[in-house]
Amino acid sequence: MNQTIELAIIGAGVAGVSAAVYAHRAGLQFSLLEPHAIGGQLLLMERVDNYPGLGVGTQARVLAENLEKTLSILHIEPIQEAVTSAAIEKNQLRINTDERCIVAKSAIVATGASFKKLAVEGEEDFSGRGVSYCAICDGFFFKNKVVAVVGGGNSAVEEALYLSNICKKVYLIHRRDNLRAIAYLQKEVSGKSNIEIIFNTVVRRIQGKDFVETLILEDVKTHAPREFAVNGLFVAIGVTPATEILRGIVTMDEAGFIITNEEMNSSVPFIWACGDCRNRPLRQLITAASEGATAAISAYKYLKGGYISA
Amino acid sequence: MNQTIELAIIGAGVAGVSAAVYAHRAGLQFSLLEPHAIGGQLLLMERVDNYPGLGVGTQARVLAENLEKTLSILHIEPIQEAVTSAAIEKNQLRINTDERCIVAKSAIVATGASFKKLAVEGEEDFSGRGVSYCAICDGFFFKNKVVAVVGGGNSAVEEALYLSNICKKVYLIHRRDNLRAIAYLQKEVSGKSNIEIIFNTVVRRIQGKDFVETLILEDVKTHAPREFAVNGLFVAIGVTPATEILRGIVTMDEAGFIITNEEMNSSVPFIWACGDCRNRPLRQLITAASEGATAAISAYKYLKGGYISA
Repeated sequence: MNQTIELAIIGAGVAGVSAAVYAHRAGLQFSLLEPHAIGGQLLLMERVDNYPGLGVGTQARVLAENLEKTLSILHIEPIQEAVTSAAIEKNQLRINTDERCIVAKSAIVATGASFKKLAVEGEEDFSGRGVSYCAICDGFFFKNKVVAVVGGGNSAVEEALYLSNICKKVYLIHRRDNLRAIAYLQKEVSGKSNIEIIFNTVVRRIQGKDFVETLILEDVKTHAPREFAVNGLFVAIGVTPATEILRGIVTMDEAGFIITNEEMNSSVPFIWACGDCRNRPLRQLITAASEGATAAISAYKYLKGGYISA
Repeated sequence: MNQTIELAIIGAGVAGVSAAVYAHRAGLQFSLLEPHAIGGQLLLMERVDNYPGLGVGTQARVLAENLEKTLSILHIEPIQEAVTSAAIEKNQLRINTDERCIVAKSAIVATGASFKKLAVEGEEDFSGRGVSYCAICDGFFFKNKVVAVVGGGNSAVEEALYLSNICKKVYLIHRRDNLRAIAYLQKEVSGKSNIEIIFNTVVRRIQGKDFVETLILEDVKTHAPREFAVNGLFVAIGVTPATEILRGIVTMDEAGFIITNEEMNSSVPFIWACGDCRNRPLRQLITAASEGATAAISAYKYLKGGYISA
């Protein structure tokens, strides 16, 4: 099967759905590709407090359902297939799934990213119930509480610093005997009286009843285990963008995030990126929604012309 | 009365409230200044269909109420005073109202903008019921319908082109005998079979029952009136940002919109702008919400340090 369309939107998390809503409203002819359920990262979250306009304490699944309902009301039916590869052909993007080949005059990439996991017992069970991967998203739930951050790179130290402004105490747990983070950040950490670094230590297990209560830590040298009480654990060992299919097609940063301008345009004039797969200043649901809208209007300008800054 | 605070957020539309939510969550000590009700442009709107996650067909006042409720839950009490002037003093912003002087270590400007009005009979009554000031916001309500756009500049022509992709017929009504829009846009218009330009004509009155039905047009030369049937009217005669108090303090574009980078930073390191008062690619509620969040996190980075790209 071989189709030619104006626009392909790859991914139906917040960014992709937002792009679809705006593409629809602009009268574009497009397909939305998503192999999984609608909602992206929302499907892994419990509660959303920081999506302005939605009210405090909204269940993440309610927001995901809202997105799904919106698509349904607008008669946008996602193609439930994974994109297996893509290639540029004559100023168009050829997109392959296991079942079809779509030739798109333009494409919005909203494939998201995934946080690297510790892969220890309890991590999945307590995800959203004390285990988090984003301090700006979830830090406030731990106001005046005791949390641990796992990691030793720039992100981990940034998360620890952010949390130190909200939480009573922040432990930074790192498996090596020194941090990888740049000197400037290390200096900032040393100036915070409520951050304590625990070197040469890994998390072996996450425990609790309804919510995280203790960690089982292990000293990497002595292998001695110990129980350690915390209210929350922030895992900051990396984020992997789902941009494999675009490799060699658009310019990415070192970690694989797609580089765009403020109109979401990638290095290819007819490809835009939005949401977590994009190199961006603030990785949040609300910014993903905004970027999806912006990408769709940029696609509209490219396809239909009629704007000064296309 | 004289106060020193970490952060002042000026304006409590979607952008300002979003900034307040994120500033609160980041543990910043701030004041939110807003002389009017919470919601900004929302207070002038009827229905919101394009705020992803909120569902299609939400009443604008419901969204405004959600914002107000959020502030209340977070115990953020806006200072209900208008900022009368501002000045930089020793790397801080001094903000004056009629009742107090606030010295802020940093400031987020979210003062919004207002659309220029035709100031004709019926315009206010039918606002949100056929009269609109934003094609990307409201164009879809007029799918396959007949609309008129008033104006002759770049924005008016862009709006007409956008609507031509959705509506059955678009009339562009302009009081002069030629468009001010740049040649490229004029050429685009001439290529659209469903756009018709009506020169030397002004709108004198907007009529209808529940919704716009007819316009009373007047020929500027003969002064002859005529009744003209449309389903909607888009007024595109200009947007005025509410940035007067920042004039001479931050860099603005010709029209007075504040110029920022993608982190919302203005030309002054401790002042950010977000929402409609900012020079931005897409003027929408969802982009305003995103920009408010981004501005707050930028302020956090400035005030608290600890990030690589402060």
